[in-house]
Amino acid sequence: MDAEIIGVGRELLLGQISNTDAQYISQKLSQLGINVFYHTVVGDNNKRLKEVLKIAVSRADLIITTGGLGPTMDDLTKETVAEFLGIPMELHQPSVEQIEEYFTKRGRRVSQNNYKQAYFPKGSIVLPNNHGTAPGAILEHDNKIFIILPGPPRELQPMFEEHVIPYLEGKSSEKIISRVLKIYGIGESDMEEKIKDLLINQSNPTIAPLAGASELTIRLTAKTSRNEDPYKLIQPVEEKIRERLGDVVYGIDDDTLESVVVNLLIESGKTIATAESCTGGLIAERITSIPGASQVFLQGVVAYSNQSKIERLKVSKETLAQFGAVSQQTAEEMVKGIIETSGADIGVAVTGIAGPGGGTKDKPVGLVYIGIGDKNGFLAVNRYNLLGDRKRVQQSSASLALDSIRRALLNGDIG
Amino acid sequence: MDAEIIGVGRELLLGQISNTDAQYISQKLSQLGINVFYHTVVGDNNKRLKEVLKIAVSRADLIITTGGLGPTMDDLTKETVAEFLGIPMELHQPSVEQIEEYFTKRGRRVSQNNYKQAYFPKGSIVLPNNHGTAPGAILEHDNKIFIILPGPPRELQPMFEEHVIPYLEGKSSEKIISRVLKIYGIGESDMEEKIKDLLINQSNPTIAPLAGASELTIRLTAKTSRNEDPYKLIQPVEEKIRERLGDVVYGIDDDTLESVVVNLLIESGKTIATAESCTGGLIAERITSIPGASQVFLQGVVAYSNQSKIERLKVSKETLAQFGAVSQQTAEEMVKGIIETSGADIGVAVTGIAGPGGGTKDKPVGLVYIGIGDKNGFLAVNRYNLLGDRKRVQQSSASLALDSIRRALLNGDIG
Repeated sequence: MDAEIIGVGRELLLGQISNTDAQYISQKLSQLGINVFYHTVVGDNNKRLKEVLKIAVSRADLIITTGGLGPTMDDLTKETVAEFLGIPMELHQPSVEQIEEYFTKRGRRVSQNNYKQAYFPKGSIVLPNNHGTAPGAILEHDNKIFIILPGPPRELQPMFEEHVIPYLEGKSSEKIISRVLKIYGIGESDMEEKIKDLLINQSNPTIAPLAGASELTIRLTAKTSRNEDPYKLIQPVEEKIRERLGDVVYGIDDDTLESVVVNLLIESGKTIATAESCTGGLIAERITSIPGASQVFLQGVVAYSNQSKIERLKVSKETLAQFGAVSQQTAEEMVKGIIETSGADIGVAVTGIAGPGGGTKDKPVGLVYIGIGDKNGFLAVNRYNLLGDRKRVQQSSASLALDSIRRALLNGDIG
Repeated sequence: MDAEIIGVGRELLLGQISNTDAQYISQKLSQLGINVFYHTVVGDNNKRLKEVLKIAVSRADLIITTGGLGPTMDDLTKETVAEFLGIPMELHQPSVEQIEEYFTKRGRRVSQNNYKQAYFPKGSIVLPNNHGTAPGAILEHDNKIFIILPGPPRELQPMFEEHVIPYLEGKSSEKIISRVLKIYGIGESDMEEKIKDLLINQSNPTIAPLAGASELTIRLTAKTSRNEDPYKLIQPVEEKIRERLGDVVYGIDDDTLESVVVNLLIESGKTIATAESCTGGLIAERITSIPGASQVFLQGVVAYSNQSKIERLKVSKETLAQFGAVSQQTAEEMVKGIIETSGADIGVAVTGIAGPGGGTKDKPVGLVYIGIGDKNGFLAVNRYNLLGDRKRVQQSSASLALDSIRRALLNGDIG
């Protein structure tokens, strides 16, 4: 099956947003073994969209549109698909009810134009939207499949997972499964060097390394007939890669450094507290973004001012005066202070210069100290010189801190 | 002039990368007054790329390709454009020298296939690449303009700034400027209702509303001749929209709720501290993401456990026992406590149930109390029932908290 993805929306053509929907859908279709040969983006314009649809049906079997399902006059994707196929629009009563419920829950009034979102080309399978007011639709017509999806990723993605993937799987005789290995703490070329022979000899599963902003992933994708288990093909290759790379492989699929840390803490029955300066609460925020964090995360202090480092974390005035807020000594006292004042088993502290201001020759922007320790007296502080802008320095510092905790827990250093 | 942007590359169709080149070029062309009516993405395939070029010349005057200029056999954009137009390829001697210099500087040997990157369709204006080995090209042919650019953004963007923009400005008699109004605290349809007549009668500037995850924007775009000032057209319309919408318009262009809050605090010379439970440090993180936050942000407490609410924020045991951690009373004491213990002028506190666990019939997931106050005794706590998953509840709570501070500062309620 060959697919074309059509993004509809002026905001894409103006460059206000990037076409991440096409990226997301392409990834998912690739995992399903469906070829994507074209992406197209067109504005909310009846004539141009119809021309784009005409081109798409001439070169693809599966046409997926994203966007243009909103309540406003501008939004015309469904209507244009219906017109293009010569199919009338029809009111879908369950969608009326879902839309009314959506607004009632939020204590808001349904405005008249929201009912527009409950009309679909006749014969559509309507896909409920649990994260917004625009349902999607699947329409089979003349041996072509049209899938009409809302634009906002937080609406599109769950709809795709819950409804589109099962639908497309039903159309296929193959089973394709992917597993993503999540990797932190090694460079791209070092990693590739270590698994070079596996990369050269890959076939089923395929092995696809990908470098992100601060992490690497390796996607293993195996294909079998519907009554076999593709995991059986993935497993031995995954084991080989883990042997070669060691503990830089921190998780799989949806794992994040913070989810792995929270789970390790839950398993070991240990609690943690954070003391942050330049990361400004980011480590606490990443830990508490994980459901169940309240079992292990007691508290965090964002000690931005010197005064707060003294009062909240018992950093000594003398240390701050002699070595400065960004120093090995201050980081050590922050770790000790957060463990002592919070009562947590484990403490983590970060102090550094995120920039753009505040750097000096001796202490440039990007200088960061990250410390971890526990109430049994373990204490380790590392110094880093990080590159990038403020946001990048803050994110890298938080990732390094989380990875330090992960490794120390795995090695039995802390806890 | 009407443009189409053609992205060439398998990595786009597999979803390994997002088409940020199209977004970047669209923004730039929009600022130049050039309409972008289509984006297309196609693989590194001679036949399909030629078909895409054929469609593009039928509907655009300016065709910009990105990608497919590498040294490998896969890279065939230039060759395919030449073949499509019936123009021979020609060696461009200055590019040979530039490529050799690029490798010599890096202590690397030029491999034979790198010379492929010095061939161009005859008659091209060659665009030097100061950040890689693939030069770009501009080719005028039969009243159409073809601009051929490398894929990597760090090569494409400087080439676009240095060579493409001056070239295109020379072709245009118009000037175009956009301003984005940032809006928080009103729904999309309510907003459109209030400016309906402006939307219907828009022409120059155009008025484009856009709904994001939790915010709205309105982009005003005005076009004038080169010796006039497009802002003169934007200004009266912006004023009308601000009159209709009031203080839900919180900023313009790159403003965020947190940047506006930090700037209002800097202007008023006031300091702030945060006390967070369910947002887990997100408010502190958003405030400290803004350069200069250290002038106004003293500290934050992420008081996740009851014990930390008692010890760090002086919330009374009785209040926690009688009303619970998620209650009006606890929120009030958290605000008072953070102001008292931090010495900040202004305090903000959030306590709630982010989910997925922890909800009860009386206190469901999404119940959040947000309080703000100051050291002069002002105190206000609002109760919200927020929808969505954990992440959404946390993000919405943080945005509501930041917006509460913004409004209170604007109204002179706190400070």
